Amino acid sequence: MAAPVALIQGASRGLGLEFCRHVLRNKPLAAVIATCRNPDRAAELRGLAGDHPGRLTVLRLDVNREEDVCAAAERVKETFGGVDLLVNSSAVLHPSGKGETSLRDVSAQGLISTLMTNTVGPLVMAKHFAPLLHQGGGGFGQQPVEKHKQHSGIIVNITAKVGSIGDNGLGGWYSYRMSKAALNMATRNLSIELGRSRPKVVCVSLHPGTVNTDLSRPYHRNVPKDQLFSTERSVKCLMSIIDALNMEKTGKAYSWDGTVLPW
Amino acid sequence: MAAPVALIQGASRGLGLEFCRHVLRNKPLAAVIATCRNPDRAAELRGLAGDHPGRLTVLRLDVNREEDVCAAAERVKETFGGVDLLVNSSAVLHPSGKGETSLRDVSAQGLISTLMTNTVGPLVMAKHFAPLLHQGGGGFGQQPVEKHKQHSGIIVNITAKVGSIGDNGLGGWYSYRMSKAALNMATRNLSIELGRSRPKVVCVSLHPGTVNTDLSRPYHRNVPKDQLFSTERSVKCLMSIIDALNMEKTGKAYSWDGTVLPW
Repeated sequence: MAAPVALIQGASRGLGLEFCRHVLRNKPLAAVIATCRNPDRAAELRGLAGDHPGRLTVLRLDVNREEDVCAAAERVKETFGGVDLLVNSSAVLHPSGKGETSLRDVSAQGLISTLMTNTVGPLVMAKHFAPLLHQGGGGFGQQPVEKHKQHSGIIVNITAKVGSIGDNGLGGWYSYRMSKAALNMATRNLSIELGRSRPKVVCVSLHPGTVNTDLSRPYHRNVPKDQLFSTERSVKCLMSIIDALNMEKTGKAYSWDGTVLPW
Repeated sequence: MAAPVALIQGASRGLGLEFCRHVLRNKPLAAVIATCRNPDRAAELRGLAGDHPGRLTVLRLDVNREEDVCAAAERVKETFGGVDLLVNSSAVLHPSGKGETSLRDVSAQGLISTLMTNTVGPLVMAKHFAPLLHQGGGGFGQQPVEKHKQHSGIIVNITAKVGSIGDNGLGGWYSYRMSKAALNMATRNLSIELGRSRPKVVCVSLHPGTVNTDLSRPYHRNVPKDQLFSTERSVKCLMSIIDALNMEKTGKAYSWDGTVLPW
């Protein structure tokens, strides 16, 4: 059986970087492909590659450039043949760095830019990597005994609880909320299309909690300390969800504690 | 009391055109503002203006150009002072005219273009017309006796049942589904922000059924005849929902028969 392959998109920092670190440490056989816009500036990622010789491949990829995504998929196909886990991690809150507090802050440009990175990017990744996920060895998640219920790969779209329409009681953050709601629809659609195919691919949205990253930094003082997760804590929770994924759990949004989020 | 003002965005054909016709016929006191990208090519709209002298104002407006929206709002403010009902009607299925049947058909460009028209456009409309809706006279919907529960205006975003994530059992139509899920989040956010303001503005998403329009034309042969609505039938149903709207019903998505759609 081939070594499992995890591809982490948006891996230069924050959750993506921690996903790479976690898989390298906890899945000693796994190979990790880390993508980011500027590998030259991703010092931590290069450090990680040095700590785990031969196990981490860093690829340049901007999700807003479909040609980049296509080229990366080509390259991964040649080198690895298949992918067992794709994590779409990169996201922006808003190009200004702050979510809109009211309609006054809404702009077409801010909406489009956020939708490009948070919504269009992950789906374009899924498009180009779906053939590789079909070629995966099912090295992540939980495989049932019955062959026809097994999966070859898993797609994880990092969503956010504020992307739940039903849970939205506060408003604001128009661009971010809308981008994540649309991403959840993409997850649902992917789970249906890739659940029909053979071999099957699991697709879920995961909410990482409020994590101590650059994205949430402007809001940290509003978050009670025990509710502001380190990237380590968040990724540990998310990986325990991923480790238990199978086709019966596909097509849903889960919070870091495993509860299902309403759409 | 000033005559009620309805602004129908995307009024050159289909549902938008029928909304104009319906309001002109059934609300004899109301003034109608119809916006479309090319008034010169909107012969039916011009005919309607001729049939109802002095009651229909046609404005050029492309929802993909925020400067158009801003200029139209300025013009409406000068002429009418306020707006009682805004219907965001324009939508595309996909720039190709066909929804994606599988991931192979997905493209960044198709997604972005669909999101621009179906999602970003309506929210940018809401941004620029919210001040005018606050100045509305509450001429549409149902006003409770209690002053603090009354609304000055109503925003209707035309959604689609296929934009419901929870109801999605078939997949496909990535761009359209995602654009409408994100629009539903915009509706929810608007209902919260404009429900806090004084005076209050109601905001809902409405699903018109499968309507005999250009958007759905490629799929008509798959629709049982009694389930393919004429624009007249659909708008009649939607207007009876609108006529009963109040602040207690804000922030939800309703189907043409009045049932609440899951997110």
